[in-house]
Amino acid sequence: MAPSHWIFSTWIFILCGCTAGLYKQPSSEEGITRNCTSNPPYLPPTVVNTSQQLSALRQQMRTFNISAYIIPATDAHMSEYIAEFDKRREWMTGFTGSAGTAVVTMTKAALWTDSRYWAEAERQMDCNWELQKTPWISSIVEWLLNEIPGERIGFDPFLFSINDWNSYSEPIKSSGGILSSITTNLVDTVWSTRPPLPSNQIYQLREEFTGSTWQEKVSSIRSQMSQHSQKPTAVLLSALDESAWLFNLRGKDIPYNPLFYSYTLLSHDFIRLFVNVTRITPEVQKYLNTNCTGPLCVQLIDYNQVQENVRKYTEGNVKIWIGMEYTTYGLYEVIPKEKLLTDNYSPVMKTKAVKNQKEQQLMRKSHIRDAVAMTQFLVWLEKTVPKGTVDEMSAANYVDSLRGKQEHSAGPSFATISASGLNAALAHYSPSNKTKRKLTVDEMYLIDSGGQYLDGTTDITRTLHWGKPTAFEKEAYTRVLMGNLDLTMLIFPSESSGRPLETLARKPLWEAGLNYGHGTGHGIGNFLSIHEWPVGFQSNNIPMTKGMFTSIEPGYYHDGGFGIRIEDVALVVEAQTKYMFGGQPYLTFEAITLVPYDQKLIDTTIMSATQINYLNNYYQTIRKIIGPELKNQKLEEEYTWLMRNTESFSQGTLAAVSLGTMTFTLLANVFLQRVLV
Amino acid sequence: MAPSHWIFSTWIFILCGCTAGLYKQPSSEEGITRNCTSNPPYLPPTVVNTSQQLSALRQQMRTFNISAYIIPATDAHMSEYIAEFDKRREWMTGFTGSAGTAVVTMTKAALWTDSRYWAEAERQMDCNWELQKTPWISSIVEWLLNEIPGERIGFDPFLFSINDWNSYSEPIKSSGGILSSITTNLVDTVWSTRPPLPSNQIYQLREEFTGSTWQEKVSSIRSQMSQHSQKPTAVLLSALDESAWLFNLRGKDIPYNPLFYSYTLLSHDFIRLFVNVTRITPEVQKYLNTNCTGPLCVQLIDYNQVQENVRKYTEGNVKIWIGMEYTTYGLYEVIPKEKLLTDNYSPVMKTKAVKNQKEQQLMRKSHIRDAVAMTQFLVWLEKTVPKGTVDEMSAANYVDSLRGKQEHSAGPSFATISASGLNAALAHYSPSNKTKRKLTVDEMYLIDSGGQYLDGTTDITRTLHWGKPTAFEKEAYTRVLMGNLDLTMLIFPSESSGRPLETLARKPLWEAGLNYGHGTGHGIGNFLSIHEWPVGFQSNNIPMTKGMFTSIEPGYYHDGGFGIRIEDVALVVEAQTKYMFGGQPYLTFEAITLVPYDQKLIDTTIMSATQINYLNNYYQTIRKIIGPELKNQKLEEEYTWLMRNTESFSQGTLAAVSLGTMTFTLLANVFLQRVLV
Repeated sequence: MAPSHWIFSTWIFILCGCTAGLYKQPSSEEGITRNCTSNPPYLPPTVVNTSQQLSALRQQMRTFNISAYIIPATDAHMSEYIAEFDKRREWMTGFTGSAGTAVVTMTKAALWTDSRYWAEAERQMDCNWELQKTPWISSIVEWLLNEIPGERIGFDPFLFSINDWNSYSEPIKSSGGILSSITTNLVDTVWSTRPPLPSNQIYQLREEFTGSTWQEKVSSIRSQMSQHSQKPTAVLLSALDESAWLFNLRGKDIPYNPLFYSYTLLSHDFIRLFVNVTRITPEVQKYLNTNCTGPLCVQLIDYNQVQENVRKYTEGNVKIWIGMEYTTYGLYEVIPKEKLLTDNYSPVMKTKAVKNQKEQQLMRKSHIRDAVAMTQFLVWLEKTVPKGTVDEMSAANYVDSLRGKQEHSAGPSFATISASGLNAALAHYSPSNKTKRKLTVDEMYLIDSGGQYLDGTTDITRTLHWGKPTAFEKEAYTRVLMGNLDLTMLIFPSESSGRPLETLARKPLWEAGLNYGHGTGHGIGNFLSIHEWPVGFQSNNIPMTKGMFTSIEPGYYHDGGFGIRIEDVALVVEAQTKYMFGGQPYLTFEAITLVPYDQKLIDTTIMSATQINYLNNYYQTIRKIIGPELKNQKLEEEYTWLMRNTESFSQGTLAAVSLGTMTFTLLANVFLQRVLV
Repeated sequence: MAPSHWIFSTWIFILCGCTAGLYKQPSSEEGITRNCTSNPPYLPPTVVNTSQQLSALRQQMRTFNISAYIIPATDAHMSEYIAEFDKRREWMTGFTGSAGTAVVTMTKAALWTDSRYWAEAERQMDCNWELQKTPWISSIVEWLLNEIPGERIGFDPFLFSINDWNSYSEPIKSSGGILSSITTNLVDTVWSTRPPLPSNQIYQLREEFTGSTWQEKVSSIRSQMSQHSQKPTAVLLSALDESAWLFNLRGKDIPYNPLFYSYTLLSHDFIRLFVNVTRITPEVQKYLNTNCTGPLCVQLIDYNQVQENVRKYTEGNVKIWIGMEYTTYGLYEVIPKEKLLTDNYSPVMKTKAVKNQKEQQLMRKSHIRDAVAMTQFLVWLEKTVPKGTVDEMSAANYVDSLRGKQEHSAGPSFATISASGLNAALAHYSPSNKTKRKLTVDEMYLIDSGGQYLDGTTDITRTLHWGKPTAFEKEAYTRVLMGNLDLTMLIFPSESSGRPLETLARKPLWEAGLNYGHGTGHGIGNFLSIHEWPVGFQSNNIPMTKGMFTSIEPGYYHDGGFGIRIEDVALVVEAQTKYMFGGQPYLTFEAITLVPYDQKLIDTTIMSATQINYLNNYYQTIRKIIGPELKNQKLEEEYTWLMRNTESFSQGTLAAVSLGTMTFTLLANVFLQRVLV
């Protein structure tokens, strides 16, 4: 899990209607935030003075004759993580949070962001900026229509997806306002200190780490084009992981995700890769067959030519297939509507989502090494935390360094979430020197981290306690675990959409009047994005299919107290069912994250025998697969720890088995004699 | 359940992606259907010759200069059931099924309907008509664009909801076609034998049967208008149950639903009821205060004036609040967009969905008497079926007659579904003299029926067997029952949408590789519609709220074999939870349908102790509430039967308790000694 994932989560939250949890100010932040109502206003030293950039921007706004300018926090590829080069909203506002949209009028400036970032915004923004706490487009539009009714609102078409643009333009138009697309980005024109465009090397992923060659991928997409009833002549790819996946190329333009700035226009006759050509080495040129002109030769065209090149292409008798979620309005607006074939996601997005056998094997291997690093980390914590020498920052750095030592490591897959006690109640807290807490035996600790490896990407969350958890902490943890297990065990029909399935992850919490305010999981790439859409449990995800990977990560967040999340990555596999109504095999999940949960926090008396049995089998799998790898890496101490922490829940610890609402202690022993031996 | 419910179901089906079940021809129909490919074509006597009406319609099409005309199977209020007067598509095609759209071009005629009706269509339509088996608008549009690219397509704007119109117009426009709104209905102009407009009396519902007065309802809607940020000046009501509910009036215009043709325009200053004024008796006029002009006086205006009257109203500085699902394009097109406030459902629809205490009591009472009629029916079947004297038709008639004898009865709430053996595998089969089967002790029987009572509307399905069910029939039945119980027991957060919740009703079937191809439930009215939107478990339903009623009706349909459905009506109530994360009380369901299930078909060895415990409690409730009413009605034999059929599942019958996948026989007895005594 990481920022954007949580933005989507907001929607689930609204779906659930249980908004309380999400709308809390982190208690730990009080006192160090701005106060614009006091006289004089109080501004903490962490605040950035934005008067200069605001007046410069307003100057530009006059030149372009607009009354308002919208500044989103994304790039021209709708990336979740963006390069320094693209952090326009951050430079304008001083606010560094990953989510949030800024709007500037001639007299006002406002930032919309969700509850995760309110405290941060109050610490970083000066009083030029209003903080708006309803982070959805409809509320931005409402604000605009009140402030400057009927006037011109400017935006950069390359920073708006088609869907975003629709959400803005329809209400604005219907209220007589004007939404004006300006291809010159106004912030860039005044951003004197703007960092340079990334220019590091773009490299070829070794054959051993790829599921198929780029030529095979190209022909699979072309055959999908031929089979489509509307006969598209080309596919236009805008998301950075689409081109990276298609050509088996990687770069370092974006933090955490090994991607590079690019677009691809793929037709039956040609392949055009729009990229900074100087970054493509002769070796890679050879690999891409750039020195020929056939349908399997790649034409390298300058990145900045994409809009004009696409416009020219549309002069012919063509139909361009695009995905609405990742294509920007900047490209959409140059394509005549009758020459468009639109889906929510491009065929490349959907093909990439289903991993083939080799890709599945690569993912499994990376998760084995990742489990070794996590085991080392858990052993280290167990020994070090009681000494009082670990804090959230040093713990985060240590787990990152352990992954770095594993084979094929390519750094963390997102900013490690390392949160102790009440900090963990902020579901997306990341530690800073200002906020970091010491890890102690007196409070729970949540670690959500992952690695990039040449063969796969990982994402795991464990929640731990080294002292005496309270009964409530134990119950909440166990219910989160029960939800994780129940969803993982669920058998469901092929092509089920994920949203209705994730109810299983919430049910054990709901039974006690508990819940969590975020999504239950997201897709994940093979050495690609940590959050790989369109797979997951949100209502805008595509149906579950054999070969997809998704995280499963229920949680519970007790404001001012503690935070719990248990996250594993799972593969969608065929289930063995007695019957097969519908003619398609039924599906289920197989957890490929192989790290034990904290025994101290598990209360088996509220778990069903099915859950306990599954848990014991999962632990056996961990022993079989991770044990040998620990030996192989000469990690004897870790091996011993793993054996101790994957012991079956025996008759002793299993004091009672609960069947939902009813409990019958006396049965447990009999039951276990019969079933678990 | 009944026709439209199943149309919505189709979508759930597609959601599930398990399309097999829905796309089967009923085996029982072979041989008696048309064959247009043979030479000469074979036409069964059941076919209607439509050549005359087609040439007459095409004549009109020439006059109006259109190349195609779309004929939906609805009325100007998007009613689920329609009067004879409105059965235009039936008269044009000969096809009597409740669902299906017809399209006529100068050279072709085609009907789109779903799998429930394919056999019927093949029996009733002559070879002028193509049968199209993909009953969604996109497929109708695709067909039109192939047949008459770029030409004019005519439609009656009063037979299209705004949403339907959008679904047609967007793709047609973008492909250069023209969708032309013609307020004169072309079928009506040539329909010489058209039945008259219903003209029977419109009557006032006695105060004892209403939750609040029409004046109270009017002011509640007006206060919602005042509280709305967009300050609507009026609400326009198009659905027939909206006006009926608002004024506590009822009629007999529509089969099964006690409704009358009407529209309402409700502003802060006036109330306009558009209706056939001659049908309003002096008594009702007095009740509606028609002889004054204040904001609580009702102006009666002729039904046909509505479009013009609304158009005139929009000349002022107004904003009209409408629901997109039930308002027709005919009214939408006369309202300037900037004077519209649109939701999916009107405030009346949403208010009506949440029943107040008195309305809840009324519903409960009607369900008690309904349970008596059902108990009488089940006793009668048990005695009569073995004699071989009952068939699907006579059984349906008998259960209807039993309801008719109960107090406040106002007829059946939909066409009784009475299906034996393989007929029940057609999820929406209704018996006819051609298809009826005899009820025997050798096959399962499904009865889905309901009653209209002055105090409430009922809908119940039971599946029965009087002989020896096969192991598979027993397992399938028990899994359907487990799904029904698990969903009813579910505890969930306030404002949860229903779609993700209904997974619980499918899970026990999914575990064995079984499923069903329809929705899991629908809202229900107080002596109003049997399918009262927008409550239910479909993705377009509104969130669950305390005070809503919904049916819960999982099933399983084994093509060519048998059909199972178990349906109860449940009330959304507050749940008692240990905690209350989110600050809102959690919710659950309370079944108010109080009729036992068929003991013969329940296999407790695959049920959890929680399910068995719930079932025993439910049976206790039936005894407490229905028992005395049977005594009260002097139904001693039925009382004895009820006691026998609501016995707790004792140690004897409970051979084994299953915990999901694991079973442990030896535990059962111990368990029951501890828990069930």
